[in-house]
Amino acid sequence: MMAEKAGKLTHIDASGEANMVDVGDKAETVRIAVAEGFIRMAPATLDLILKGDAKKGDVIGTARLAGIMAAKQTSSLIPLCHPLMLTKVAVEIREDPALPGLRVEAMAKLTGRTGVEMEALTAVSVACLTIYDMAKAADREMEVGGIRLVEKSGGRSGDYKRANA
Amino acid sequence: MMAEKAGKLTHIDASGEANMVDVGDKAETVRIAVAEGFIRMAPATLDLILKGDAKKGDVIGTARLAGIMAAKQTSSLIPLCHPLMLTKVAVEIREDPALPGLRVEAMAKLTGRTGVEMEALTAVSVACLTIYDMAKAADREMEVGGIRLVEKSGGRSGDYKRANA
Amino acid sequence: MMAEKAGKLTHIDASGEANMVDVGDKAETVRIAVAEGFIRMAPATLDLILKGDAKKGDVIGTARLAGIMAAKQTSSLIPLCHPLMLTKVAVEIREDPALPGLRVEAMAKLTGRTGVEMEALTAVSVACLTIYDMAKAADREMEVGGIRLVEKSGGRSGDYKRANA
Amino acid sequence: MMAEKAGKLTHIDASGEANMVDVGDKAETVRIAVAEGFIRMAPATLDLILKGDAKKGDVIGTARLAGIMAAKQTSSLIPLCHPLMLTKVAVEIREDPALPGLRVEAMAKLTGRTGVEMEALTAVSVACLTIYDMAKAADREMEVGGIRLVEKSGGRSGDYKRANA
Amino acid sequence: MMAEKAGKLTHIDASGEANMVDVGDKAETVRIAVAEGFIRMAPATLDLILKGDAKKGDVIGTARLAGIMAAKQTSSLIPLCHPLMLTKVAVEIREDPALPGLRVEAMAKLTGRTGVEMEALTAVSVACLTIYDMAKAADREMEVGGIRLVEKSGGRSGDYKRANA
Amino acid sequence: MMAEKAGKLTHIDASGEANMVDVGDKAETVRIAVAEGFIRMAPATLDLILKGDAKKGDVIGTARLAGIMAAKQTSSLIPLCHPLMLTKVAVEIREDPALPGLRVEAMAKLTGRTGVEMEALTAVSVACLTIYDMAKAADREMEVGGIRLVEKSGGRSGDYKRANA
Repeated sequence: MMAEKAGKLTHIDASGEANMVDVGDKAETVRIAVAEGFIRMAPATLDLILKGDAKKGDVIGTARLAGIMAAKQTSSLIPLCHPLMLTKVAVEIREDPALPGLRVEAMAKLTGRTGVEMEALTAVSVACLTIYDMAKAADREMEVGGIRLVEKSGGRSGDYKRANA
Repeated sequence: MMAEKAGKLTHIDASGEANMVDVGDKAETVRIAVAEGFIRMAPATLDLILKGDAKKGDVIGTARLAGIMAAKQTSSLIPLCHPLMLTKVAVEIREDPALPGLRVEAMAKLTGRTGVEMEALTAVSVACLTIYDMAKAADREMEVGGIRLVEKSGGRSGDYKRANA
Repeated sequence: MMAEKAGKLTHIDASGEANMVDVGDKAETVRIAVAEGFIRMAPATLDLILKGDAKKGDVIGTARLAGIMAAKQTSSLIPLCHPLMLTKVAVEIREDPALPGLRVEAMAKLTGRTGVEMEALTAVSVACLTIYDMAKAADREMEVGGIRLVEKSGGRSGDYKRANA
Repeated sequence: MMAEKAGKLTHIDASGEANMVDVGDKAETVRIAVAEGFIRMAPATLDLILKGDAKKGDVIGTARLAGIMAAKQTSSLIPLCHPLMLTKVAVEIREDPALPGLRVEAMAKLTGRTGVEMEALTAVSVACLTIYDMAKAADREMEVGGIRLVEKSGGRSGDYKRANA
Repeated sequence: MMAEKAGKLTHIDASGEANMVDVGDKAETVRIAVAEGFIRMAPATLDLILKGDAKKGDVIGTARLAGIMAAKQTSSLIPLCHPLMLTKVAVEIREDPALPGLRVEAMAKLTGRTGVEMEALTAVSVACLTIYDMAKAADREMEVGGIRLVEKSGGRSGDYKRANA
Repeated sequence: MMAEKAGKLTHIDASGEANMVDVGDKAETVRIAVAEGFIRMAPATLDLILKGDAKKGDVIGTARLAGIMAAKQTSSLIPLCHPLMLTKVAVEIREDPALPGLRVEAMAKLTGRTGVEMEALTAVSVACLTIYDMAKAADREMEVGGIRLVEKSGGRSGDYKRANA
């Protein structure tokens, strides 16, 4: 996959300076990206979050909304990202007792000229940070990780699906 | 560490609803938090980033600034975080050929009523996402991980230093 | 009007979770929404605001601008709103001695895939809050109300005009 | 109440221009403000929102978070508001079948130099708009109203409690 | 003036990297900064702006508010600026037929740990850009200039007043 | 150039109130704008900025990024600007020993319904302010000026190139 791309960092121009890539010539197509990540915590912390419907709803529901809202701020946060008019963002969070912790998956969708993987990755990251924030009084050892692209469609560079997703 | 804290999620009130914690009664003290994380990538991608001073400066320098600026947006991103007047934010990024990839460390500092771990963690996360953005045309398999608190001082709950930090 | 729609809250998906609606399949059409609201106050407060051209210009002019600027922030404020590229926002404020107070009307326009009623309603709300802010030292009893959609055109769900508008 | 204040709009200076009030000489005290408002809707719409735990949680929970987050953006939305470091924001939403609709109450708290009524009023307004957004596909006739200050304490101008609150 | 300062760029640390300066050890004092600037335009453009009270009010009033609101966004715009709780911002705009054009002066005030010259300079810059925006359909040759610090008080580095101010 | 335009300020409507221009009927075309400006400083300050690769990279690189990111915030800063989906922003900064100081040039590009000169001008202004911020401890006499449109293409009003550019 890296073969044809290797050798260029698209945001670095000929003079070695960081710049926004010009996407004006790209076609307007439907673009979808899915990203994932997790937050690992002590089993007792996971229990606290999951214990009781209302409470679970609140930590997980708050993190879902934070992820959705953060996706809309991506171009303010990531210096060289283009402003986009996302047509949909969805975030799902599920417990994984084997981790132990919570797994987050985010999908971003756009009809536009550039990919939306950064929006999906930002949603995952901020959802995980929000869980951290709400549980940190109980557990300072939590760790956020595994943030990566799962799949991507639309656009010139072809569809992508992570092998071990 | 979790013993005395276990059983409460401070952002969840008696009725099970998510709310901002009242920090009005906390003392104004100097509070410092250090967080870390990494982005793992193909060796060729790391070479691309490190190759040539200007280019290295740009990817790493851009990510550093993005992390610093994101720390200042923490209370807009994390729903229940308090707005804070950070007195300092610093972000350091160094290569780790064994990863292979880049390691990010962020420090946030405040004279105020609440801790700044979320600011440090947000800086690390957004710095990693920025590196991802700038290298993604060359490598879609990169993974962000290991985002966690390294140490923390100031405030009622006592100082903290991660055992294996 | 509710007959065919009743039974669905479009932002709640099958699993009961809040999500952004996917508007990617909606047609790009011209969409217009008009909303209204008012702020009721003591007659003496209204006099203060209206007294003198410069002063009237300032309270009302400030509120108009605040409304226009807030319309552009709608997708940052309302968690499940889509980011939009508004082609026009207009806010009008007129005195109503019978209220007594000020009446605010806002219009938002877009060539795009989703309606703009939230943008018009947000403009009205923030214009009213701005008047409140500028007059609150003189009158703490003011009340903002009557915030509702007046009319709407464009889009799949057909045109709408409030009966008693 | 207006007697001693009547005759001055604090944001209008001697030349009739709108300006931020100088709060640098005010004392740092604990300041609390509580505001309220409602959204009136068809009984069937209220049923939709309340039907099923998960769904209720989501509309009301989403609106609560939107209100809390909006309170933190008050100084960006209201042109002459001062940036503040809120120490707490809380939003409560309860059904009122007699309305019929939902009632929203918000509390903002600060140790600082200026009052927080605008923060509480902004939280109420944006929480109501969020409910509107999530239910608007089922009911275009909803109306937001009754947005007003309930009580306020701290600061030079003395405590205030609405008579009919 | 530069003698004792020459040789250090305070945002560049020992390793040559850009960072926020640590202001945690600075004293909380009253700090005031005044900045100025101008926008030069064709005489006919200035006439258009000044012609008629309402219109003058609107261009100049809009620019004043834009400047005040921008001052509050300074730490979001300037990467290494600290977030501050400004206690006052004021912007004045007056015509200068000899320019010909408009002159803008802004004052920012804070009780805090760091200076507010960037806030005053940002207010001036954005007020000038707003005038440009509102008059650009009539005149594309306008030029913004003369943006500089007029005076500054409070803080360790001593008071400053521009010689030729 | 002003002949056919003279007599109208497009943001002022018939009643003399400031409003966003309706761009809904304009054609979607490729629009490009280039703006320029400078920051004048003491020769010793320029030396400080240019001295050493890392340091130069940091001041100039930070200013470049600040300009790019600010361009994306233009519609939040300038009250009557439309939100836009920029397809490219580029900022170049070069030393001019004759000034003495640094010259900034910014280009903004869009496929859309309205011009992007405000985005280019905002990028230039914020890049200059960022340089000021980073060098102000060494030199309080710096001055930002010469901010103007260099050229513009696309859109109904025809292409433009400054005579003395």
